[in-house]
Amino acid sequence: MGTLKPWARFPLLVAAHLLALGIGAAVLQALEGPPALQLQAKLRAELAAFQAEYGACLPPGALEELLGTALEAQVHGVSSLGNGSEARTWDLPSALLFTASILTTTGYGNMAPLSAGGKAFCVVYATLGLPASLALLAALRCCLLPLLSHPGAWVAIHWQLAPETAALLCAAGLGLLVAGTFVLLPALVLWGLQGECDLLEAIYFCFSSLSTIGLGDLLPGGSRGLHPVLYHLGQLALLGYLLLGLLAMLLTVETFSELPQVRAMVKFFGSSGLLTAEDQGGILGQDELALSTLPPSAAAPEQATTC
Amino acid sequence: MGTLKPWARFPLLVAAHLLALGIGAAVLQALEGPPALQLQAKLRAELAAFQAEYGACLPPGALEELLGTALEAQVHGVSSLGNGSEARTWDLPSALLFTASILTTTGYGNMAPLSAGGKAFCVVYATLGLPASLALLAALRCCLLPLLSHPGAWVAIHWQLAPETAALLCAAGLGLLVAGTFVLLPALVLWGLQGECDLLEAIYFCFSSLSTIGLGDLLPGGSRGLHPVLYHLGQLALLGYLLLGLLAMLLTVETFSELPQVRAMVKFFGSSGLLTAEDQGGILGQDELALSTLPPSAAAPEQATTC
Repeated sequence: MGTLKPWARFPLLVAAHLLALGIGAAVLQALEGPPALQLQAKLRAELAAFQAEYGACLPPGALEELLGTALEAQVHGVSSLGNGSEARTWDLPSALLFTASILTTTGYGNMAPLSAGGKAFCVVYATLGLPASLALLAALRCCLLPLLSHPGAWVAIHWQLAPETAALLCAAGLGLLVAGTFVLLPALVLWGLQGECDLLEAIYFCFSSLSTIGLGDLLPGGSRGLHPVLYHLGQLALLGYLLLGLLAMLLTVETFSELPQVRAMVKFFGSSGLLTAEDQGGILGQDELALSTLPPSAAAPEQATTC
Repeated sequence: MGTLKPWARFPLLVAAHLLALGIGAAVLQALEGPPALQLQAKLRAELAAFQAEYGACLPPGALEELLGTALEAQVHGVSSLGNGSEARTWDLPSALLFTASILTTTGYGNMAPLSAGGKAFCVVYATLGLPASLALLAALRCCLLPLLSHPGAWVAIHWQLAPETAALLCAAGLGLLVAGTFVLLPALVLWGLQGECDLLEAIYFCFSSLSTIGLGDLLPGGSRGLHPVLYHLGQLALLGYLLLGLLAMLLTVETFSELPQVRAMVKFFGSSGLLTAEDQGGILGQDELALSTLPPSAAAPEQATTC
């Protein structure tokens, strides 16, 4: 791997990713294709049986129209089933969860704006809010970075390990702690509270939320006829979980990205030789001649986000 | 603002974010609450009218059961309407789009795994794939960072501006270019191609994809009876758009995060005074005494991801 030419490394990494994309797609197709086809066949058989049995009294297309309206409404989180006493779609806890899913880019999608004004507001809100969230995360990193390096130093001294090994151990420990506290534990709680989903589905939901993938196919408490107060408490709990859990994930990612091993790997693939050291030195030299007030940040492009 | 005590800055930023979350929720509630209630009322009226007219020949609960099954299937992307010649749910282009939505954390959710194996595979795939994607992005940043600083230097020299002003101008220019090329242009294309969505909805979709929020409420080509080949081409186009567009977004975010103005703001809010300079110096001094082989990265915790 070390003999790989610089210009070839990054394209190789990209090719590996595209291959992984394809392999993932093929595996999921194999796993999910048959169950999806079966469900579709079952559904169509049910529809056909329904039409056959009661179709005599139904005008043609009436059932399809009703189904179509109900399905379209569900996309926006409007449910057609259930009585009127359940929680409304855009009550405050639901709206809070929705805006949090926007600002964290999780985007569950179980609720979505219907009106043009709502859609326009979402675009503007995210355009302003996402950069602000990124700035918040960068500031948090600056705050906590000193704290993150101390466990590694402590372990290195007291367990007599090389600093790199100690840092790796601490990062792995933090990763396991976060996975246990923010994925496994909440999943166990969800599994215990909800009769409908098994442990795997609960883990799948927690993972989907904290990775900000947010598929939105499983959301706790949605289908059961919960008392509105309990439902709202659950949504607020989910909101808190999302925000705290993402924070923990960020810290873990930061800790891993600071590891010397990870930095070395990034540098290996990132040194594409697009610009040689002499080119960089030459261009910067001319800049420095022309502008004596060039700030240090422009003269050292290799140094990225510092605190 | 400058007289704000260090320990107060970050909490203030957090409080501002929580307030923004609440304000966004309140605005969306005002915008979306009424339309959602109206749609729900309309849907229930339709259901009631259907039951009233044809309920005589339908056994109680039969319609609700059918609706329930159809709605549940839709959550996983299995459609109950339409004939059998349309594209299958987990064909290869759809599966590719799904895995890409996982690795980019967009997570549209228009398709979701049904089987336990599929869900488990998604968790494992994302656990391995997301760190790899992050490493890819970090390596890309290393590659392209030298290129990003040149326009600023060129503008500063040739337009006789201060380096910070030149950098800000270039960042703003890049932002507008990316917004025009990857949000406005694709939105115009979508709007032209699809009769059903207006320009705002097309912009809303492009924005939702590129910000990785991925609500999934609007996906091009889903509801129309497109020829399968056209539908697949559209999905592959969407896949390419997602990957390239996210790349462009990343470059823009990186360029903005390198701006001196942004760095100063992050440093302002991030210097919480959790650890004073003397504390840092004292602890590091002891570490250095104990470990003469301490690498430079551990001795300079303020410097984050470098290339």
